[in-house]
Amino acid sequence: MPTPKRVIIVGAGFGGLAAAQELGSRDEGSPVEVLVVDRQNYHLFTPLLYQVAMAGLSATDIAYPIRAVLHRLRNVHVLLGEVVGIDAASRTIRLEDDSVHAYDYLILAAGARTSYFGHDDWARHAPGLKDLDDALEVRRRVLVALEAAERAEDPAERRRQLTFVVVGGGPTGVELAGAIADLSEDILADDFRRLAPEGVHVILIERGSSILTPFGPKLSARARRQLEELGVEVRTGVGVEAVDERGVIVAGQSIAAGTVLWGAGVRAHPLAAALGAPVDRGGRVLVGPDCSVPGHPEVFAIGDLASFTPQGATEPLPGISPVAVQQGRTVAANVLRDGRGESRESFRYFDKGFMATIGRARAVARLGGLQLSGLVAWLFWVFVHLWYLVGFRNRVAVFTNWIWAYIVSRHGARVITGRRAPLPPRPLA
Amino acid sequence: MPTPKRVIIVGAGFGGLAAAQELGSRDEGSPVEVLVVDRQNYHLFTPLLYQVAMAGLSATDIAYPIRAVLHRLRNVHVLLGEVVGIDAASRTIRLEDDSVHAYDYLILAAGARTSYFGHDDWARHAPGLKDLDDALEVRRRVLVALEAAERAEDPAERRRQLTFVVVGGGPTGVELAGAIADLSEDILADDFRRLAPEGVHVILIERGSSILTPFGPKLSARARRQLEELGVEVRTGVGVEAVDERGVIVAGQSIAAGTVLWGAGVRAHPLAAALGAPVDRGGRVLVGPDCSVPGHPEVFAIGDLASFTPQGATEPLPGISPVAVQQGRTVAANVLRDGRGESRESFRYFDKGFMATIGRARAVARLGGLQLSGLVAWLFWVFVHLWYLVGFRNRVAVFTNWIWAYIVSRHGARVITGRRAPLPPRPLA
Repeated sequence: MPTPKRVIIVGAGFGGLAAAQELGSRDEGSPVEVLVVDRQNYHLFTPLLYQVAMAGLSATDIAYPIRAVLHRLRNVHVLLGEVVGIDAASRTIRLEDDSVHAYDYLILAAGARTSYFGHDDWARHAPGLKDLDDALEVRRRVLVALEAAERAEDPAERRRQLTFVVVGGGPTGVELAGAIADLSEDILADDFRRLAPEGVHVILIERGSSILTPFGPKLSARARRQLEELGVEVRTGVGVEAVDERGVIVAGQSIAAGTVLWGAGVRAHPLAAALGAPVDRGGRVLVGPDCSVPGHPEVFAIGDLASFTPQGATEPLPGISPVAVQQGRTVAANVLRDGRGESRESFRYFDKGFMATIGRARAVARLGGLQLSGLVAWLFWVFVHLWYLVGFRNRVAVFTNWIWAYIVSRHGARVITGRRAPLPPRPLA
Repeated sequence: MPTPKRVIIVGAGFGGLAAAQELGSRDEGSPVEVLVVDRQNYHLFTPLLYQVAMAGLSATDIAYPIRAVLHRLRNVHVLLGEVVGIDAASRTIRLEDDSVHAYDYLILAAGARTSYFGHDDWARHAPGLKDLDDALEVRRRVLVALEAAERAEDPAERRRQLTFVVVGGGPTGVELAGAIADLSEDILADDFRRLAPEGVHVILIERGSSILTPFGPKLSARARRQLEELGVEVRTGVGVEAVDERGVIVAGQSIAAGTVLWGAGVRAHPLAAALGAPVDRGGRVLVGPDCSVPGHPEVFAIGDLASFTPQGATEPLPGISPVAVQQGRTVAANVLRDGRGESRESFRYFDKGFMATIGRARAVARLGGLQLSGLVAWLFWVFVHLWYLVGFRNRVAVFTNWIWAYIVSRHGARVITGRRAPLPPRPLA
């Protein structure tokens, strides 16, 4: 029997995990040995991250230990580690502890990070929402702002603490804005003596001319109307010029806000670009038809790390989980085809559509030619997300949490953790 | 109608919450106005904290928003804040934002913190287990140590990462040691390729001559035997002389350990002592028969902040939740008695006993004259803890998590959060 080929997968997000599951085997004698490296010990179900941020779900409801997902696959090994270098000549990667690991195939699936378009100093004042720690930080800020508003004696300071600015009219921004409006309606009347839900002001800012642009004009307009029904002020066609501890400056006008959240942009992990391949504006590698990195047929980049424009299309595929999952399966299948001496297949995206929720019981969804909005779209969204959520146990936990939330309208995970300043900063002089 | 008396309660642990519930009223016209101040927004069910640390429960399973607990009581207000000063002359407290709040009665229930007996530099290497952030930090360290052991090429380094030292043979130390032994047995065989449960070494160190001394010699010996059945090495009569990033020094001998946990001591929050009242070695105020602070009949100290020795007893009451709850009720009742012109009652402790678990399905419990150990004690422990856990929803969540854990023997919350160094430090040179 020939020596198994060593495949290293960097990142256990949707793409990396799909590749590992495709290459994994429950039996001995697989033609590949797989090593999955991730800087976290869990796979994160990112489509529900905003629910953790909004205290609707617990962190562990949407996170699943990578080892537990893969432990039945005998040829798959898992390491907690951060890749700090790739040497394409010797076909090795280096981890942060200077250990070196050799590969025959390398699948880069490290995803993207929040980007502030050159204004990295804004990060401190406007957290993004890309990982579990982000979500817990956003939760902390939103809940602390409500507490600070309850404490404030000065009406202006109270108004500022109840003003929430969300930057970016993509799915993340829309979901955050809708969820803040819902959260405050649920808990303000009951739990705070001095605050009224009407006092909460959520502003969604989008530089482009519409929100959720890829959904098309009809759903974009419906999403806007649904947000406005929840009391969200939607401002399109204006950019954010500055962010600091007092709030934001938009179109020359300063908005005092206790909480600013960033959903405006992401940038691919720099790993793939480090190989010297051409990248797009977002740092994504312009991959070949089989998702390989140009000049390196043994290295693949998938998911948010790759820019892939299907034949005949004008736009690259969006950074959503179905793209990553399908790419993960394709590159894994191509590794196995190489081993059998067969020729590789090109990646073909099967478009399942996309959707975004807007608070509780509202959503927009585009499924091929079908366009849904409102409660129907939302029920569809719930069904799809529960279906794909990793692990039976998490599915049950999330489902019971949701049922509970919809019956008694409370946010059970409303707990502020994190040692970084549990208390609100002093009001401005 | 006379102006209601203003009662400020500092701390929403077991004692503070019991006082607030006793003073709270669902109707208008209460003789007291209550303000509860806490630096966290949640009440924490501390008896299950070690389960969060050991990834058996999620943080939100044992934490409940204070506002949600108290929101039906119309005369109770809640503030997120940290008390930084008490002015007994003007009867005011000051919060960290310099706001000043006046009281007629002050109930100090701020609890205790981990104490390193003058070695505060040990804190970095040996976290305690007093709050939710502690628990998540302990979880992080234990899981990261297992990951580091899986990565280690050097057998000595692997052995070090699989060595867990727990300092302190009280309930916290015993529960942590037992739970680590269980955790590693559950997950090592399944999820790690290169580690075997037998490789894990848990050492419990107690300076005194026995563990769980207050339980009496019989239960102390049984607890020790049950720990040893789980593979824990129990060392009594030896003190820890040094703690650093490599491990500990015990009785002149150095033990290389990847994880050191501290359950050896606590010290009362300094608030009560700041009033100038006499305190014991642990910083606890020697309160009067009605739990008032000597010289300040309008100020009470309860729970871990108070040292209360019942008439005829030689030892003060232990720092456990039933003491705090009963004291909270007594001081609240005395505030109401004052208002009716009645004389105060002295605090009388109704001893319900105490217990400690040892891993899964083992425990020791002392209930008056009754001494239980093994599975019976553990079932009793489960029943009592579920019964007292705040909130129906949390009770259901914890119960289903436990059922799940006992059926499939997995630790569902095995997720490492916290931005502080998600990766293990480099192995020692």
